[in-house]
Amino acid sequence: MKIQLAESYGFCFGVKRAIKIAEENKNSATYGPLIHNANEIERLKRDFNVALSENLDSFKSGDTAVIRTHGIPKQELELLHERHVDVIDATCPYVTKPQQICEEMSEQGYDILIFGDEAHPEIKGVKSYATGRAYVVNSAEEVDALNLREKVAVVAQTTRRIEDYQKIVGKLMMSHKEVRVFNTICNATFDNQDAVYKLARESDIMIVIGGKNSSNTKQLHSIALDACFNSYHIESQEDLQSQWFEGKNFCGISAGASTPDWIIQAVIEHIKLLSQP
Amino acid sequence: MKIQLAESYGFCFGVKRAIKIAEENKNSATYGPLIHNANEIERLKRDFNVALSENLDSFKSGDTAVIRTHGIPKQELELLHERHVDVIDATCPYVTKPQQICEEMSEQGYDILIFGDEAHPEIKGVKSYATGRAYVVNSAEEVDALNLREKVAVVAQTTRRIEDYQKIVGKLMMSHKEVRVFNTICNATFDNQDAVYKLARESDIMIVIGGKNSSNTKQLHSIALDACFNSYHIESQEDLQSQWFEGKNFCGISAGASTPDWIIQAVIEHIKLLSQP
Repeated sequence: MKIQLAESYGFCFGVKRAIKIAEENKNSATYGPLIHNANEIERLKRDFNVALSENLDSFKSGDTAVIRTHGIPKQELELLHERHVDVIDATCPYVTKPQQICEEMSEQGYDILIFGDEAHPEIKGVKSYATGRAYVVNSAEEVDALNLREKVAVVAQTTRRIEDYQKIVGKLMMSHKEVRVFNTICNATFDNQDAVYKLARESDIMIVIGGKNSSNTKQLHSIALDACFNSYHIESQEDLQSQWFEGKNFCGISAGASTPDWIIQAVIEHIKLLSQP
Repeated sequence: MKIQLAESYGFCFGVKRAIKIAEENKNSATYGPLIHNANEIERLKRDFNVALSENLDSFKSGDTAVIRTHGIPKQELELLHERHVDVIDATCPYVTKPQQICEEMSEQGYDILIFGDEAHPEIKGVKSYATGRAYVVNSAEEVDALNLREKVAVVAQTTRRIEDYQKIVGKLMMSHKEVRVFNTICNATFDNQDAVYKLARESDIMIVIGGKNSSNTKQLHSIALDACFNSYHIESQEDLQSQWFEGKNFCGISAGASTPDWIIQAVIEHIKLLSQP
């Protein structure tokens, strides 16, 4: 069986940067998971003693707190500073951007609409920067239920599909005098999404590797499914099932922005084993 | 044969206002046609001695110049003022709005994109208010050829179809960090377009009445054609052809924003005659 990686996949700029920051801050702790990949977080703990705490109150004066790539709510960041915690910010700059936009647009009197998952830490963080009215929608259908004012500023979760974002903006345009659209979907997301679609069209099985709660991996998997019915989202080689590969000739592989290369390599080796005649 | 008018059609707020202004200014002249309807312009000349001049230089100090609903270029307006012509502004307020937006957004450093017809007087006027880079496109396809900067402000000709505007914005979103969308399509346009589509779906012949160079009438006709193959754009009852009505049972009628009721009534009477068994 032929196995082929997508032209663009895996670690993005923001994830690479955050891991480098974590590695440079041995014996620190991240507040929440640095990235959505449990295996990589284990490696940082094992090799660099970078711990993980989900509890804000666990950080005391003089401790070092590394902020996750997804960012955290503004109020929590302020609390850490007030408590004289040494804050090392590994928030992806592409996430800092929509945070700033939310703050600025609120101050200029716009209602804020965020396209994303309200429960996702990135969106909790971004929304916290709005000082006025701010809403989160997961799809264009949810726009109808909102009662937004005439001037609306829109940002998107960095990992969303542009086609869905276009639908939301298209709907807003119909009923609002001004829609100020910020394209906050990151380039790595664009490139990985383009590449997974191209590859999935040629593949008879697609494997997309990434954390189960990784938003960008879920998007990649959804795009793969559009082009290839046999598309699977796995976290590691342990999730692979041999029967998936029966009668298949071309296996495409992609991986989310928080999936390290060593996991991708392990998956490829395991697929080779499983698909041996 | 059943004859039915669309739920919304004909004279809009801006046209009614302009005609009232012209009627109140007997013995004046409009600079360019006040509205895109030759019959109504004839009536204003006949009943109120409101002339029409296409030549800016014909207006001398002390003359009264009525500005057409579509507006005129900023530089020409300034010239009239410099020459101490008494300027009566009948520009539709929905056209003044995109003029102001162009000026403000240029000053704030945005590239301006105007969706409309570069040769239409409304768009010539709107574009003249941009102090920086400004471009006009007639369709989403034309967006690719432009080399716009990261921050773009977009306005539309007041008479355009929202679906086409959405396509243009969707395309801009893919390659620009900020797209500031102003929905300058006027409500009368929206209402007339909605209504013509609904009616055309039920009709086996649709008659759309309006000036041949009236942008909003052309849009209504194009929408009617989407839903009813036998759709005709006419200026007056003289354009009607009896064979159009042979074997037809339901005739829908709509009219552009610059079409006066007396023309619509004359068309209806003539259709009744033509379709008599």
